[in-house]
Amino acid sequence: MEIPVDDGIVLYTYWRSSAAYRVRIALELKGLAWDARPVHLVREGGEQHLDAYRALNPQQLVPTLLHDGHTLTQSLAIVEYLDERFPQVPLLPADAAGRARVRALAQLVACDIHPINNLRVMQYLERSLQLPADARTQWTLHWIAEGLAAMEAMLASSRDTGTFCHGDRPGLADLCLLPQLYNAHRFGLDLTPYPPLRRIEAACQALDAFARARPESQPDAAGK
Amino acid sequence: MEIPVDDGIVLYTYWRSSAAYRVRIALELKGLAWDARPVHLVREGGEQHLDAYRALNPQQLVPTLLHDGHTLTQSLAIVEYLDERFPQVPLLPADAAGRARVRALAQLVACDIHPINNLRVMQYLERSLQLPADARTQWTLHWIAEGLAAMEAMLASSRDTGTFCHGDRPGLADLCLLPQLYNAHRFGLDLTPYPPLRRIEAACQALDAFARARPESQPDAAGK
Repeated sequence: MEIPVDDGIVLYTYWRSSAAYRVRIALELKGLAWDARPVHLVREGGEQHLDAYRALNPQQLVPTLLHDGHTLTQSLAIVEYLDERFPQVPLLPADAAGRARVRALAQLVACDIHPINNLRVMQYLERSLQLPADARTQWTLHWIAEGLAAMEAMLASSRDTGTFCHGDRPGLADLCLLPQLYNAHRFGLDLTPYPPLRRIEAACQALDAFARARPESQPDAAGK
Repeated sequence: MEIPVDDGIVLYTYWRSSAAYRVRIALELKGLAWDARPVHLVREGGEQHLDAYRALNPQQLVPTLLHDGHTLTQSLAIVEYLDERFPQVPLLPADAAGRARVRALAQLVACDIHPINNLRVMQYLERSLQLPADARTQWTLHWIAEGLAAMEAMLASSRDTGTFCHGDRPGLADLCLLPQLYNAHRFGLDLTPYPPLRRIEAACQALDAFARARPESQPDAAGK
């Protein structure tokens, strides 16, 4: 972990963090220059618990974004901030109902799937409840499958769904969906029951911005 | 559960649902007329799982809000929609950094505390993992205490904190905090370590809008 030295955009990130991955996609879609400050979430008890990082982010979670003298936390709040400060390549629709739909899809992932499977929860299941590895994997798969089934139903039933979650431009919902699908693959979830999700995933993966943001492309990816 | 019959604002709600409680506060702060459609989350296996409700909300969660031909889900997305459509009594600050701060505080509760303790997770802990009642209570208290400690640190360290979470008007962060504190009281959490949270709670409770939105004031409250 380093202290930032310039006045640009600094992102405290971890290559496999789903929440940091969302913000990386937003930065790349907007074509913004940004400086990565890796925070290793598992090495030596977790760098997110160090005093220097805790002062930036009392939740001891990634991401944290520094910009223009502000210290910003929570991935969706950060993405909306970037969308307001850098309105080129908008990540939300222009109409209130469209914005509500996109935010609801994003929050389905960011509130109701991801936090239940996050590192700190998995550590609690293992350390405090002594839940065996297979039961922990079942836990993760259960919440991902339940959430993705609801997302699939919402996407399949709406005429607003296009090449991407909302129309023909990628946005806030897509940048939440892709990291969640990355986790789904990681845990071996069968995505065959979700054709629209797989179609949207392929459309996103064809874009350079998504490729640059993915975990394996990060400077702190394992094996680099 | 009834089908809506008018063109106003209809809220599918449950008196003790934290997420529905947030939207009720927003509606009351803005002085909007709204029609409650109670969805009983525990009676007869949970009315949220009925086909008629599932068609409105594939996640089978409350709240769902109907307005102007739109079916809206996810409490924070609904509150932002209301703030955009009914801008009187704004629930977010005017500046991008202020909005990011308020959204981050709201998401701290709505992403990182509440979903981990939600009914469906508690049912999984009980039914699938056979976790005893006292361990389930410890689970709930652990995540509430960890989240509120971080929120306390964020509020105590910022000059933007005022009578309420952000300045001297209640908004999106407060309407997330109050339902979470209601849950904290319900589970017997000692709030003595959190003076700013208790001060903000008292300021909110002094307002009629918060009183009208609270669980005990709802038509479907137990004992009514």
